Amino acid sequence: MIRFESDYLEGAHPLILKKLEETNYEQTAGYGMDPFCAGARERIKEACGGADVEVHFLVGGTQTNLTVISSVLRPHQGVLAAVTGHVNAHETGAIEAVGHKVLALPSEDGRITADQVRKAYEAHWKDASHEHIVQPGMVYISQPTENGTLYSKAELGALHEVCRELELPVFLDGARLGYGLAAKTNDLTLADIAALVDVFYIGGTKVGALFGEAVVICNPALRKDFRYLIKQKGGMLAKGRLLGIQFDTLFTDGLYDEISEHAVGLAMRLREVFLKKGYRLRYDSYTNQQFPVMPDAHIDRLKEKYSFEFWEKTDDSHSAVRFCTSWATRTEAVDELIRDIGSL
Amino acid sequence: MIRFESDYLEGAHPLILKKLEETNYEQTAGYGMDPFCAGARERIKEACGGADVEVHFLVGGTQTNLTVISSVLRPHQGVLAAVTGHVNAHETGAIEAVGHKVLALPSEDGRITADQVRKAYEAHWKDASHEHIVQPGMVYISQPTENGTLYSKAELGALHEVCRELELPVFLDGARLGYGLAAKTNDLTLADIAALVDVFYIGGTKVGALFGEAVVICNPALRKDFRYLIKQKGGMLAKGRLLGIQFDTLFTDGLYDEISEHAVGLAMRLREVFLKKGYRLRYDSYTNQQFPVMPDAHIDRLKEKYSFEFWEKTDDSHSAVRFCTSWATRTEAVDELIRDIGSL
Amino acid sequence: MIRFESDYLEGAHPLILKKLEETNYEQTAGYGMDPFCAGARERIKEACGGADVEVHFLVGGTQTNLTVISSVLRPHQGVLAAVTGHVNAHETGAIEAVGHKVLALPSEDGRITADQVRKAYEAHWKDASHEHIVQPGMVYISQPTENGTLYSKAELGALHEVCRELELPVFLDGARLGYGLAAKTNDLTLADIAALVDVFYIGGTKVGALFGEAVVICNPALRKDFRYLIKQKGGMLAKGRLLGIQFDTLFTDGLYDEISEHAVGLAMRLREVFLKKGYRLRYDSYTNQQFPVMPDAHIDRLKEKYSFEFWEKTDDSHSAVRFCTSWATRTEAVDELIRDIGSL
Amino acid sequence: MIRFESDYLEGAHPLILKKLEETNYEQTAGYGMDPFCAGARERIKEACGGADVEVHFLVGGTQTNLTVISSVLRPHQGVLAAVTGHVNAHETGAIEAVGHKVLALPSEDGRITADQVRKAYEAHWKDASHEHIVQPGMVYISQPTENGTLYSKAELGALHEVCRELELPVFLDGARLGYGLAAKTNDLTLADIAALVDVFYIGGTKVGALFGEAVVICNPALRKDFRYLIKQKGGMLAKGRLLGIQFDTLFTDGLYDEISEHAVGLAMRLREVFLKKGYRLRYDSYTNQQFPVMPDAHIDRLKEKYSFEFWEKTDDSHSAVRFCTSWATRTEAVDELIRDIGSL
Repeated sequence: MIRFESDYLEGAHPLILKKLEETNYEQTAGYGMDPFCAGARERIKEACGGADVEVHFLVGGTQTNLTVISSVLRPHQGVLAAVTGHVNAHETGAIEAVGHKVLALPSEDGRITADQVRKAYEAHWKDASHEHIVQPGMVYISQPTENGTLYSKAELGALHEVCRELELPVFLDGARLGYGLAAKTNDLTLADIAALVDVFYIGGTKVGALFGEAVVICNPALRKDFRYLIKQKGGMLAKGRLLGIQFDTLFTDGLYDEISEHAVGLAMRLREVFLKKGYRLRYDSYTNQQFPVMPDAHIDRLKEKYSFEFWEKTDDSHSAVRFCTSWATRTEAVDELIRDIGSL
Repeated sequence: MIRFESDYLEGAHPLILKKLEETNYEQTAGYGMDPFCAGARERIKEACGGADVEVHFLVGGTQTNLTVISSVLRPHQGVLAAVTGHVNAHETGAIEAVGHKVLALPSEDGRITADQVRKAYEAHWKDASHEHIVQPGMVYISQPTENGTLYSKAELGALHEVCRELELPVFLDGARLGYGLAAKTNDLTLADIAALVDVFYIGGTKVGALFGEAVVICNPALRKDFRYLIKQKGGMLAKGRLLGIQFDTLFTDGLYDEISEHAVGLAMRLREVFLKKGYRLRYDSYTNQQFPVMPDAHIDRLKEKYSFEFWEKTDDSHSAVRFCTSWATRTEAVDELIRDIGSL
Repeated sequence: MIRFESDYLEGAHPLILKKLEETNYEQTAGYGMDPFCAGARERIKEACGGADVEVHFLVGGTQTNLTVISSVLRPHQGVLAAVTGHVNAHETGAIEAVGHKVLALPSEDGRITADQVRKAYEAHWKDASHEHIVQPGMVYISQPTENGTLYSKAELGALHEVCRELELPVFLDGARLGYGLAAKTNDLTLADIAALVDVFYIGGTKVGALFGEAVVICNPALRKDFRYLIKQKGGMLAKGRLLGIQFDTLFTDGLYDEISEHAVGLAMRLREVFLKKGYRLRYDSYTNQQFPVMPDAHIDRLKEKYSFEFWEKTDDSHSAVRFCTSWATRTEAVDELIRDIGSL
Repeated sequence: MIRFESDYLEGAHPLILKKLEETNYEQTAGYGMDPFCAGARERIKEACGGADVEVHFLVGGTQTNLTVISSVLRPHQGVLAAVTGHVNAHETGAIEAVGHKVLALPSEDGRITADQVRKAYEAHWKDASHEHIVQPGMVYISQPTENGTLYSKAELGALHEVCRELELPVFLDGARLGYGLAAKTNDLTLADIAALVDVFYIGGTKVGALFGEAVVICNPALRKDFRYLIKQKGGMLAKGRLLGIQFDTLFTDGLYDEISEHAVGLAMRLREVFLKKGYRLRYDSYTNQQFPVMPDAHIDRLKEKYSFEFWEKTDDSHSAVRFCTSWATRTEAVDELIRDIGSL
């Protein structure tokens, strides 16, 4: 079975394993206070164009989302997010478990607009009973989204403008950020993102690391005591250096970009073959996730040899499915899949 | 600087790194549904004497504690624990953050007794205002304790008896369990523990792994939907196999025992030299943590070359300190420390 | 200004004030352990046809909802409710603040169906990633709904059947229950409700009392330690007898029914005049809330003399508004309003 | 049976019932936005010496405590309080249920000192692991305390100084505040309190009202969005005017002071008789709660005719008990009790 069902099917980039081995017996302080984390922080700041940011390392995405959101909001506030957003749909109520409603906004492709945010904000404050309604307190977006789509620089800029005006911090979930940066349609750099959001994270788990997400707090007002929150929510790794080592490696000599480009390049080949085959694309993704709508008969044939994710029925005889590539996807596997699609 | 301040100063046992490398490109399902986790579960069950238990893998201790406790208790219940217990003292209020009071019991050496539990329970139920007081809902203990001490089989049996009678599940935090099992004063096996508590965890982070704690749910009534809780609290690792691989390695060919014995053997050498030197021991520990009470002048001298943890002032000129050994402690480092203590 | 904007504009039925005065200097135990509460519990049990139920008294609706729901659910579970349900829309995230997601179901008129519940349940369990999604753990409905509509006996029976099969407790919010029981289209008795839901409450605040909601726990499995929850969530009134006195009065000599019928009778006269005037009704309500869709010009004219609630714009020149009657609405006020509508 | 077991045994001062009756049919807006609440707010501000404060009305004490504390703290912070403080001892974990640890300080008589607060603060920040420990975020005190004792102006001033320096808001629970103000040993006015704490509440439930606590927010930084919190935590009374009417009555023509003095005067007569009888006083209270240590035989004799609260065994043959007077205690009842004690 050749697997394309997710982007966390393998271990880590070999350079990371090598670094873990080389440093294995070095003795360091715990909890992220070690030189490896310090180094990784510096490299990430550089990658953000030298921005004045604070960097923390957590283990996984749900943990990161609940820690950031609970740190930002007061009890009566909620987080605006696309209805399809990970925090709304796939975290078993992690945000509610820390006390906050996810204020879901409709979305066709995983994105929300500055205008939607403004309208939700105004709807709240214009309601005579607004004290009886959860107050919008921040905005959560993903780049790329769960549907593989991207915010353009103009779109993120518009969100930034509105949210600054309305005093709503913007939090960008970058679990797959590398694959967004590597998209040919992308016009945002890490430095742009650092300038346009209040806090974001750079995903490691899906982009070359064993695990790990690097939280970048751009807005100084959101930095206070963040490490207490990490500890309380169970996200402070005792051997924090493992995160430092991994991000240091990923942000040395352009590795993070390089492996992201590899994955996206393979995904673009899949996109091309899907279109050539006449499959509609459920979402117009230029990142590592591809969502072709295929005849169910084709799906059944492919499933004999490949694993990929069922997404939704689109009509009686077709379904949308998801294929993911990653830093670890072998070119040969994609070649083989393309051949097999060709002969369907 | 030679470090003895904690038992999470280094990476992982080399066999673990080797296994991570060997399996790096294998493709597996995520979230602990992979063959490595399945194998590790089997090995842990065997190590528990074939007991009917359910095994889950989480990343760290605080996360494990808050996940287990929030799964067991109803909102009005609290957890009985030693005042020095990790959940009470060193988790930034993680248990309160999931809604529960830690009902702290006094303790001289980290242990609590069956009798204390019974009295706390009776005090609650005899109080005419008991509905105005947090109801004891479970018991948390550590083995070894934060002070390096151990429950004997008789003591744990007594706790078990009382708690079964009072319908209070017992949760044993085994962050350093290997070092407890390896103590010469220990008379408890993993199978004993599995029979005497409702849920416990086997620590990996401090005993040879990069990270990871294996939760063993002995009481079937506590198993329902536990994976939902892991996910919600941010403890479900995407590449769950990393945990499976590590615990599989630790529980193959007796590695967990072997490395624990190494650490405890070195700790016993330190214990001996402390006593020989005339230092009082703050706690009577036969495990990997040693707590000598030393003249402050000696402490200052040692600090030039060694790092270890300040524990507390005991009088004007003495302090208790903590030295930890681990699976990774080098014999030569202990030799050197012993020599230097001898010449103080 | 004559007010129709809500059903909590005045104090309490005079018999309640009288009873408060008569009993003012009697000394009783606190927290609901007094003879008045005991008496009221008995009367409510009788009103429920002698069902084996447990009755508790709380002060207000939001408090009652959050206390009941947090008592029933485990942390990873959410409550299915109409998107318009009070717990979803108008309690400032009270349910999320106790850790639970409201799983909102679409609804045209405030009601949800047995079929919707089954589909939501099945959608959850059929999803391969269900452990990553909030588990439906109970169902919340209102009778009457926030839109004045009612569940019929057949509809509630169908919900009951499905929920019993799926092991989802049903919680019925009866903040306006009296006005539902008094509707001519209603075919449910209190005894029916007690037989068909797991827990419900009989609203006092909006139906003759100064304040107070009587929680009726029908399902024995949901009774355990409920008083602890009331206390913890801040709902245990020190002078609990105030609640006992009020519900005792309301459930003596049919007062609760009598005042409900008064309110609904006046509301039916309004309904009739709205229809006669040619206004569409936004919801087909036979209870004390009426939702005519009126020309904005008419609304503006009426606002000079009457207060009522803006509901929503329906087109460029019309809006839906809400008029409420209550136990305290004077017949003369309704007469006057009807005359004024006639002359618009 | 003549009852002295608590100060919430009866209804309300007759002037309150009269005012409820007089205003019963007035129609007002809900949720505290009515003219009665507005009036009561003004009277309370005047009673506070015209201080710039914000006043809110809630129903009960536990609700008030959990609402204020959850409004002030961030998730990783806890509240410093006497171990005997109501929030620590008698609210079924209400504070933990909103996510916060109560950081209990030892106390002999219910009071804590400025020095204790400073030491707790310094202990936290000097601890190298402070990020692993709940951060002190505010201070909770009661006036009078649960033991009937009082802070002097000098003591409260010292607390104020330290807390201002350490940026710890001080919250004063005044559930029995009237009885403190009326004590002959008291040297604090409401204006003093408003100047020395950040937020406090004036108890109504125990001092003449049916129910109700008036929260006075002195520190402008703590005012933002407080009404959202009240609603979310279930404390916003639909007919909020009931609270306005009561506090308006209590703060008109010095009623609050007058009834407090009545209760304290009777308590002083009991204090005198206890001392004359040779009973030791468990706490040196000059307020409405008295704690004599009596021979168990005397207690048994009195229990035939009087109810009062068992406090604790003090030796084999003696116990401390609690007698409360209130605004409603009849002079004749105290006369009778005094006679009966005399003849023991």
